[in-house]
Amino acid sequence: MRQRVREVPCGHKPPGSPDLFHRTVLNEPVLVYRTSSGGLAALADRCCHRLAPLSRGRLEGDCVRCGYHGLKFDPSGACVEVPGMTTVPPKARVRSYPVVEKNKWVFIWMGDTERADEALLPDNFSCDHPEWQYKPGYLHYPTPYLLICDNLLDFSHLSYVHAGTLGGSTRIAEVAPTVKPLANGVNVSRRIDNVPPPAYYDFRGFDTPADRWIDYDFVLPGTLLMGSGSKPTGDVHLDRAILFHSCQTLTPETHDSTHYFFQESHRSTDGNADLKETIFANLLAAFHEDLETITAQHENIKRHPDAPMLPLAMDSALVQFRRILARRVAEEAEICSQPT
Amino acid sequence: MRQRVREVPCGHKPPGSPDLFHRTVLNEPVLVYRTSSGGLAALADRCCHRLAPLSRGRLEGDCVRCGYHGLKFDPSGACVEVPGMTTVPPKARVRSYPVVEKNKWVFIWMGDTERADEALLPDNFSCDHPEWQYKPGYLHYPTPYLLICDNLLDFSHLSYVHAGTLGGSTRIAEVAPTVKPLANGVNVSRRIDNVPPPAYYDFRGFDTPADRWIDYDFVLPGTLLMGSGSKPTGDVHLDRAILFHSCQTLTPETHDSTHYFFQESHRSTDGNADLKETIFANLLAAFHEDLETITAQHENIKRHPDAPMLPLAMDSALVQFRRILARRVAEEAEICSQPT
Amino acid sequence: MRQRVREVPCGHKPPGSPDLFHRTVLNEPVLVYRTSSGGLAALADRCCHRLAPLSRGRLEGDCVRCGYHGLKFDPSGACVEVPGMTTVPPKARVRSYPVVEKNKWVFIWMGDTERADEALLPDNFSCDHPEWQYKPGYLHYPTPYLLICDNLLDFSHLSYVHAGTLGGSTRIAEVAPTVKPLANGVNVSRRIDNVPPPAYYDFRGFDTPADRWIDYDFVLPGTLLMGSGSKPTGDVHLDRAILFHSCQTLTPETHDSTHYFFQESHRSTDGNADLKETIFANLLAAFHEDLETITAQHENIKRHPDAPMLPLAMDSALVQFRRILARRVAEEAEICSQPT
Repeated sequence: MRQRVREVPCGHKPPGSPDLFHRTVLNEPVLVYRTSSGGLAALADRCCHRLAPLSRGRLEGDCVRCGYHGLKFDPSGACVEVPGMTTVPPKARVRSYPVVEKNKWVFIWMGDTERADEALLPDNFSCDHPEWQYKPGYLHYPTPYLLICDNLLDFSHLSYVHAGTLGGSTRIAEVAPTVKPLANGVNVSRRIDNVPPPAYYDFRGFDTPADRWIDYDFVLPGTLLMGSGSKPTGDVHLDRAILFHSCQTLTPETHDSTHYFFQESHRSTDGNADLKETIFANLLAAFHEDLETITAQHENIKRHPDAPMLPLAMDSALVQFRRILARRVAEEAEICSQPT
Repeated sequence: MRQRVREVPCGHKPPGSPDLFHRTVLNEPVLVYRTSSGGLAALADRCCHRLAPLSRGRLEGDCVRCGYHGLKFDPSGACVEVPGMTTVPPKARVRSYPVVEKNKWVFIWMGDTERADEALLPDNFSCDHPEWQYKPGYLHYPTPYLLICDNLLDFSHLSYVHAGTLGGSTRIAEVAPTVKPLANGVNVSRRIDNVPPPAYYDFRGFDTPADRWIDYDFVLPGTLLMGSGSKPTGDVHLDRAILFHSCQTLTPETHDSTHYFFQESHRSTDGNADLKETIFANLLAAFHEDLETITAQHENIKRHPDAPMLPLAMDSALVQFRRILARRVAEEAEICSQPT
Repeated sequence: MRQRVREVPCGHKPPGSPDLFHRTVLNEPVLVYRTSSGGLAALADRCCHRLAPLSRGRLEGDCVRCGYHGLKFDPSGACVEVPGMTTVPPKARVRSYPVVEKNKWVFIWMGDTERADEALLPDNFSCDHPEWQYKPGYLHYPTPYLLICDNLLDFSHLSYVHAGTLGGSTRIAEVAPTVKPLANGVNVSRRIDNVPPPAYYDFRGFDTPADRWIDYDFVLPGTLLMGSGSKPTGDVHLDRAILFHSCQTLTPETHDSTHYFFQESHRSTDGNADLKETIFANLLAAFHEDLETITAQHENIKRHPDAPMLPLAMDSALVQFRRILARRVAEEAEICSQPT
């Protein structure tokens, strides 16, 4: 089985206006736009002529014209017109990338084109299902993406970073999670019974302690797919349970900056019309707590890059994930050195 | 014939107040000030004692006194007073640079003093002539100066970068320019007939298509001297013609930043008193389009310095100019290694 | 006698709220907090687990709990609790630093703990004496600390940098100081008679010329302890004399930034209740003149790090101090390579 680590999302969808959407992914400038058929095109955002970003140009039908000297490229990246020349030199082209939309998210494949494989994409069903509602979110991190993977692989931080938002109890950190290996990552689950409900659940108005559960896959290259929820302690019928489904995924922008895409869906039958906004606002506030914490951690690391970390019991999942990632990177380097 | 590439302008003129004008040129801090005779002095803006900028000191007659410990320098750069010492050490001096004013522009010679040659300065006559009016402009570029030379050597970009200002037609890019070699650079001319007049000419109120012409020398180290104009198509008498004379010159500030000085003069008989301001405002808006484009191009180049450019027909003049520049730099390196 | 250069102050006192005070000292992140007994604790501000700053956590009794995953440390730096673990791994600790309060200033010892020696601290008595009043000050410098030492070791700059504030006469630069070696630095004194009183003394309303005197030790690693004053020229009884006692000390933050702590005390019998504020405001304005000058000097040095300085007579004290510092650094390197 061939494995790849380069399946990375590049945004929920390109904005309608301007038509040309720029995003730097894996240190490469990328242009994404929608074609007249409703499909997507993704091109290197760097004209082959004088290297200006194509995203500063304009869409002409399904083609993009560079805003500097007017070269025109089709969705395959081929240059189809050079002003002042009757024929286009064969070398005049920019790289195009496989790009697909799945469950309302846009994914781009930055590796060898022929190795792109949609089967590797996460099943983020709740963004595309009438029984679920969600509002998508984005944060830009000035840190390497692995520090954010670490964060998502150890939910003990909910007790401390998110004490006043998602956490609400030191019991989350005290309960050991179950960590199981996956072909492509790890599965982490944790059950915390009989704890004060966190502020995040205020909309439900629990008046008793709550039981909470968290169950997620964290898979290469850096995607969390999670079912989580809570119910009043002792409520066996789940009548008042809260259920969430979340996808959170990390796309390296550069070596030390990251795009963080996330959504946490709730059941459509839950709450009134404002609930989606309430959940989103509370989640975003909590994710800013992570952003501040990880940014401060990264500042310390930048100052002393050789300062060692101390592995502890709570690091089980993240240590496993970093090991899987290292192995996959080595495998891929070997695969890519062979003919396809 | 000895040739030099280091004749660089350093500003239109030092401001009257403060008396001491600082500008970084070729990565060197430079102080320029006006002496009591109306002449100019240009000194290294770095005291020989503890390296403080002299421009933070004060003018005393024709001398400048350092604002840190009070050393006083005459216009030749010689230290003439050290507080607390009765004699001045012979080593106490800062470098002085040849500096002249020509056609209201100030030029400084950063190379070997004995090789300075006023004959190399551009003939920017229209800044100093009763039949012409102008308003001088300045832009700071966060890019290497060669990227701006490239821009000025290929006016096909008018059709795209300046579609709504100086351009107004794709014909400019479609018409091949004539490029002729000069001893010191290249001459570029282009004639575009029967096109919609660009927004830049709105003040003239053309009600027919226009014929346009552009004719400029682009000479070392990076100066454009241009006559350009337009007339209603078919107007053989030039009664309603617009005539411009422009000088635009690039002075490297550092390896990746540039001073851009420019002026575009029009005939004094043209238009009313406000026209000078109208032309300047329109030109400045257009030059910001270049600034944004070239800055974006430079961002792409910084991210991937090894990404190759693809030479096309439109690059003829800029390829020639870069070749002339490389040859001149090599010649100068040889000349400078010999006794003068 | 063992000598050390690492005794550096880290602030007047940790702020009461927030309880956890962060400061970077010698490129190390440091957390300082007050314990319940009124003492001080200073810890590396970097959790041993995942390197997050402890100062973003919270105080629990005399311990600090990390805000990321909840590790708890006592004032000795030992980890006393890891959430989810019943025993704490012995390696779980952060470095603690000796820290003391003397004359209302807080000093931290960044070197080998066993070499810490309170006897090395400056005698800044006037911050802790009923006959003296003061207001403490702090400035952040974006420059290496040695450039500020240079400034403080040559008061000839008062005539130029501070012409309108502390100086008021070129005589200060013209009078040679007396420079005497100390075990730990240099003593500099200067007497300037019969000069116009500077603006700094306006509060006293001198109506005659004044005699001024300055006498300070400048000791390793970078502390000035100064008595200074002035009296009307010819006033033999000192009835109207102004007396100051000042401590100014420099703590490197990083290789090119510095914490500058200072205070200038005056006699409690001097002036009314507002005088303390007046003196502080005038001193701060003058110290901003230094900050601007040295920052501009540093910009020049950064651009051309190899540009040589030219030693002059006025540099006597700073040349001696730099020599003493270099010798002490070499001695310390030898001491630290031996068993204690």
